[in-house]
Amino acid sequence: MINVGIIGSTGYAGAEIVRLLLGHPEVKLRWLGSRSYIDKRYSEVFGNMFEIADDPCKDDNIEAMVNECDVIFTATPQGFCSTLINEDVLSKVKIIDLSADFRIKDVSIYEQWYKLEHKSPEFIKEAVYGLCEINREDIKKARLLANPGCYTTCSILTLYPLVKEGIIDPQSIIIDAKSGTSGAGRGAKVPNLYCEVNESMKAYGVTTHRHTPEIEEQLGYACGEDIKLIFTPHLAPMNRGILVTAYANLAKSVDYDAVKAAYDKYYKNEQFVRVLEKDVCPETRWVECSNYVDVNFKIDERTNRIVAMGALDNLVKGAAGQAVQNMNLMFGFKENTAINMPPVFP
Amino acid sequence: MINVGIIGSTGYAGAEIVRLLLGHPEVKLRWLGSRSYIDKRYSEVFGNMFEIADDPCKDDNIEAMVNECDVIFTATPQGFCSTLINEDVLSKVKIIDLSADFRIKDVSIYEQWYKLEHKSPEFIKEAVYGLCEINREDIKKARLLANPGCYTTCSILTLYPLVKEGIIDPQSIIIDAKSGTSGAGRGAKVPNLYCEVNESMKAYGVTTHRHTPEIEEQLGYACGEDIKLIFTPHLAPMNRGILVTAYANLAKSVDYDAVKAAYDKYYKNEQFVRVLEKDVCPETRWVECSNYVDVNFKIDERTNRIVAMGALDNLVKGAAGQAVQNMNLMFGFKENTAINMPPVFP
Amino acid sequence: MINVGIIGSTGYAGAEIVRLLLGHPEVKLRWLGSRSYIDKRYSEVFGNMFEIADDPCKDDNIEAMVNECDVIFTATPQGFCSTLINEDVLSKVKIIDLSADFRIKDVSIYEQWYKLEHKSPEFIKEAVYGLCEINREDIKKARLLANPGCYTTCSILTLYPLVKEGIIDPQSIIIDAKSGTSGAGRGAKVPNLYCEVNESMKAYGVTTHRHTPEIEEQLGYACGEDIKLIFTPHLAPMNRGILVTAYANLAKSVDYDAVKAAYDKYYKNEQFVRVLEKDVCPETRWVECSNYVDVNFKIDERTNRIVAMGALDNLVKGAAGQAVQNMNLMFGFKENTAINMPPVFP
Amino acid sequence: MINVGIIGSTGYAGAEIVRLLLGHPEVKLRWLGSRSYIDKRYSEVFGNMFEIADDPCKDDNIEAMVNECDVIFTATPQGFCSTLINEDVLSKVKIIDLSADFRIKDVSIYEQWYKLEHKSPEFIKEAVYGLCEINREDIKKARLLANPGCYTTCSILTLYPLVKEGIIDPQSIIIDAKSGTSGAGRGAKVPNLYCEVNESMKAYGVTTHRHTPEIEEQLGYACGEDIKLIFTPHLAPMNRGILVTAYANLAKSVDYDAVKAAYDKYYKNEQFVRVLEKDVCPETRWVECSNYVDVNFKIDERTNRIVAMGALDNLVKGAAGQAVQNMNLMFGFKENTAINMPPVFP
Repeated sequence: MINVGIIGSTGYAGAEIVRLLLGHPEVKLRWLGSRSYIDKRYSEVFGNMFEIADDPCKDDNIEAMVNECDVIFTATPQGFCSTLINEDVLSKVKIIDLSADFRIKDVSIYEQWYKLEHKSPEFIKEAVYGLCEINREDIKKARLLANPGCYTTCSILTLYPLVKEGIIDPQSIIIDAKSGTSGAGRGAKVPNLYCEVNESMKAYGVTTHRHTPEIEEQLGYACGEDIKLIFTPHLAPMNRGILVTAYANLAKSVDYDAVKAAYDKYYKNEQFVRVLEKDVCPETRWVECSNYVDVNFKIDERTNRIVAMGALDNLVKGAAGQAVQNMNLMFGFKENTAINMPPVFP
Repeated sequence: MINVGIIGSTGYAGAEIVRLLLGHPEVKLRWLGSRSYIDKRYSEVFGNMFEIADDPCKDDNIEAMVNECDVIFTATPQGFCSTLINEDVLSKVKIIDLSADFRIKDVSIYEQWYKLEHKSPEFIKEAVYGLCEINREDIKKARLLANPGCYTTCSILTLYPLVKEGIIDPQSIIIDAKSGTSGAGRGAKVPNLYCEVNESMKAYGVTTHRHTPEIEEQLGYACGEDIKLIFTPHLAPMNRGILVTAYANLAKSVDYDAVKAAYDKYYKNEQFVRVLEKDVCPETRWVECSNYVDVNFKIDERTNRIVAMGALDNLVKGAAGQAVQNMNLMFGFKENTAINMPPVFP
Repeated sequence: MINVGIIGSTGYAGAEIVRLLLGHPEVKLRWLGSRSYIDKRYSEVFGNMFEIADDPCKDDNIEAMVNECDVIFTATPQGFCSTLINEDVLSKVKIIDLSADFRIKDVSIYEQWYKLEHKSPEFIKEAVYGLCEINREDIKKARLLANPGCYTTCSILTLYPLVKEGIIDPQSIIIDAKSGTSGAGRGAKVPNLYCEVNESMKAYGVTTHRHTPEIEEQLGYACGEDIKLIFTPHLAPMNRGILVTAYANLAKSVDYDAVKAAYDKYYKNEQFVRVLEKDVCPETRWVECSNYVDVNFKIDERTNRIVAMGALDNLVKGAAGQAVQNMNLMFGFKENTAINMPPVFP
Repeated sequence: MINVGIIGSTGYAGAEIVRLLLGHPEVKLRWLGSRSYIDKRYSEVFGNMFEIADDPCKDDNIEAMVNECDVIFTATPQGFCSTLINEDVLSKVKIIDLSADFRIKDVSIYEQWYKLEHKSPEFIKEAVYGLCEINREDIKKARLLANPGCYTTCSILTLYPLVKEGIIDPQSIIIDAKSGTSGAGRGAKVPNLYCEVNESMKAYGVTTHRHTPEIEEQLGYACGEDIKLIFTPHLAPMNRGILVTAYANLAKSVDYDAVKAAYDKYYKNEQFVRVLEKDVCPETRWVECSNYVDVNFKIDERTNRIVAMGALDNLVKGAAGQAVQNMNLMFGFKENTAINMPPVFP
């Protein structure tokens, strides 16, 4: 049994950690941190938690938390977690950071894309990038875990076998992603109002979205070279879900079976990555409220390109579910504990 | 460990039974029946079940099923279950019927509202009406369980304490209900197409909806008299959820505390019925994907009436969840097994 | 040709006035007022207006406006319009107020329900309640026009023939209304975020909503007695539309034809009120983006009650469309000018 | 004044033609054809048309129609229009075909992508491709007008200046498009049910969608060479709207101003194509219910590519609106008659 603290428990991602951990037999929720709602009962902020999680929210007192908790999740805005980390903290608790602060190894790239000064760059090297299916062994030993971004998880898992196996030219990658609105957070902003999002689609952050360098770095490791790609996120009128449609030039002559074998090589034994059957396209409805990622691909002989597709739930495998999966690995629990539920439909 | 069969497993309610039972440690899904999709893999019909429930669908062979299963759920159109039931069947398996066939004790009322001839009226008397919070002890002993309707469950649980305690005039009840579209089933019909339902609200079945006599009968038991009420269902542009707003004349002078005490009397110890705090209105988002029902009320001194409100997920507490809850009671499992998850938000 | 000013042109209702008046051949949009967006181009606030209404927003300078405009629409929060009105203003321009300030004749009722002090009660008597189908002749002569509320318009038009003709007991009226989210305005508030509204239904303002006394007053005029009724608004996950389902006890023995005749008596010659055919329920999708109100009713012989239903677009007939209809009447234009378009579907 | 007939008036596109033409001062709707609803009143099929278009639907009697109509719109499944056309028909009426039958000049490409035999290939040459902004002069003289596809209109108008001016390598084009669900038609199919589409995104027809060769042909004319491109459509949970995000390699060194000038060269004087301001991305909400197309672009210096974006309403500029625009050109009416309304929001 471990004690868990969450800093930023009243955002959508933080709330999803709470929801998942309520079903975890080895976890006690010890500290629900929320700067905005201190002393307000958690179930007043999220009515679904009435009679389930009624404790009051606490402040972000890291000094107190490290003494009460075995692991702390930080589901906070970019730049905040880097102000909390030091050797004393890491000697007492494990940190699973859902922000971007420790995802990017080159701090200058972080600072350039995020327009922030990193406050504890000395820990970036130690941090483990928590994409479970790729870095499982390192994750088990991590003290400081950088939980991947939602778009990033979907993009990387969709493209990884193609890049790793040299099937595509990594410099030709174009990623067109569509996200549900919970990815925009729970802040009160006009563009996120119901009537502004409903019945509309838009691209945003075109050529400048911060998940770009994260995808480039991780896929770069897979192929052993620096990559530049285009990543375009879109806002879709739905609560949850990310769909990635990725395009690349084929680097060698391949047929369906060869590419399928590449995907199976990496994912056949992975519970949470499902390589769909031939010609079946991933749909976000089939992974909702679950930790699954569905991937598939289609070769276009006419243009000698490939279309790779992936779908996940941005709040689960794209955030809280993967964070719990990482926690399970870090503490030696069964990897799918508390995240082993089938997707919900409809 | 029991073996479970489902007739009608490829409708929305049947699929929700499958989803819930996949998390039930005492259950083996033995027979996924579906007349429309015989021999098609279940996961081809519902993509969320890929690599989770890949067995092919079977036909509705009740003779074979009774020998392989301990319990059979029938999530089928009205009138079908009544053709399956006989003493031989009931001597071998327990039946949990999600249709209306065994809900109404007076067969002439059933036949009048449903425009159907009942094929096994001799079993109506034995059937237990499976509203767990009201009929728990009878349910434990049932062979044939009539699982309540979605609107009915929400309406009855919302009004039960008021009727039972004589707080309202039961002849004055007006129930205005709003349902998500999964309640309309998975049949391919123009009025249920996305563009027809989206961005619209409508009433339907005004003064004639079939859940009316079911509500009247059950609330009639609570007050010991025959009741006539108005029940108006509405279709709302959302997947899941039922919201009931009910109106009645106060039968005696009461204040908030007195009415609150009446609700607490029946629900304080019930996990799945949550009496909300003063002035908090039930919202379907707070019960989604869960077996919870949220209820509350507001006294209107100006008109000497009361407004009672309830919210549930039509596929869970309104169908599959309650069916599983009934199964747990009938087999002596812990009542909340496989349905003990918090609501999902957003 | 008249010059029009709008105070509060950057809310949803104000924007709808702009949209409608752009198609009005007798109107020049002279002043787009918006305290929040002064000097910002109108099309930056509403992208649909790019290259159509690119002028900058102006402040709420009533002194300047009265000299430039023939009519001013005030689409502002409650209490604001009453601070603008005086004899000098009314001697120079006509005012069409979309707030509640001049709707309720008894200022004490206004102040009690709105928790506001009325700043110019001396003009309440003069103000004409702008429900075109009921008060057409008075509207033609008005200087100060109180444009009805969205819920109110739908509720009154749905019930008016029943009350006026003595068909129902007016003290027994219960109104259950469902509204699209644009009715909640464009303010940045957490409860109106996409993920909070989507996939949910809730009641709000139960027994206390401010449109209650407005409905009571107007229906009271129709039957010649003071009325107390219950009005319950609900928030629905859609942009536009109000659906009213109203219940009342029948005051005399009537059949379908008699009630139909009552509706026809008042609406047969009204373009914008459509009495639907027998057993057809109003649906908001059939009136969207139009000035139409669809109404119908169903007699329930079992309970001796009637269910009356109405549907409209809250931003058109429920706000901007009716305001333009009023303007047309006040200036002698053809009544349906600029609002004579069919509903949009889907 | 001209007489108009519509074959297929009860699909979504056909209904939108009806809606738009009801506001056209030079048009009389003479024949509302609908094989599925013969003799049913039009307003029974589309409730929004109650008391507006109550005439009964007629069959598809082309012989009778050519004598009563000046122009016939065919909003019918692929392959049907080609069975209607002959010299006699074209000598009597003008035909505006919303299907694909006469869009593609090379009949073998049509037959290969559509898996249909073309029944009147001798008229393909004569048919004019009705993209108004590109082919205006030819359209004015056309007897047989091939109205462009919805995805096609958006894709071509988004990319045309880039291809025409040699800014991009046309062989590198990748088009990722997202469409509202009305594009899937009004047929009763499970995948188009509310609960299947709502809260989900998916790609479909990957590498095989029939609009691909249409886009390739038209953009090929612009650059004078045969093009092969990837076009991927996606289904989005909204009624209306198409958003195109297109990617291509830059063929020469350009900056923002140069590309902007290219767009302005073709669209500056076009009412219905709006080149947005720098860094403003098109959003479908800003063009809804209107004939506008919003386009813009972003240069990505990191990868030497460009991202071009376009948004339109699939039922208006993507179907019925453009058809009316074409009709206006063909009959010498003012080009924007009946389609000159601003977009509706929200």
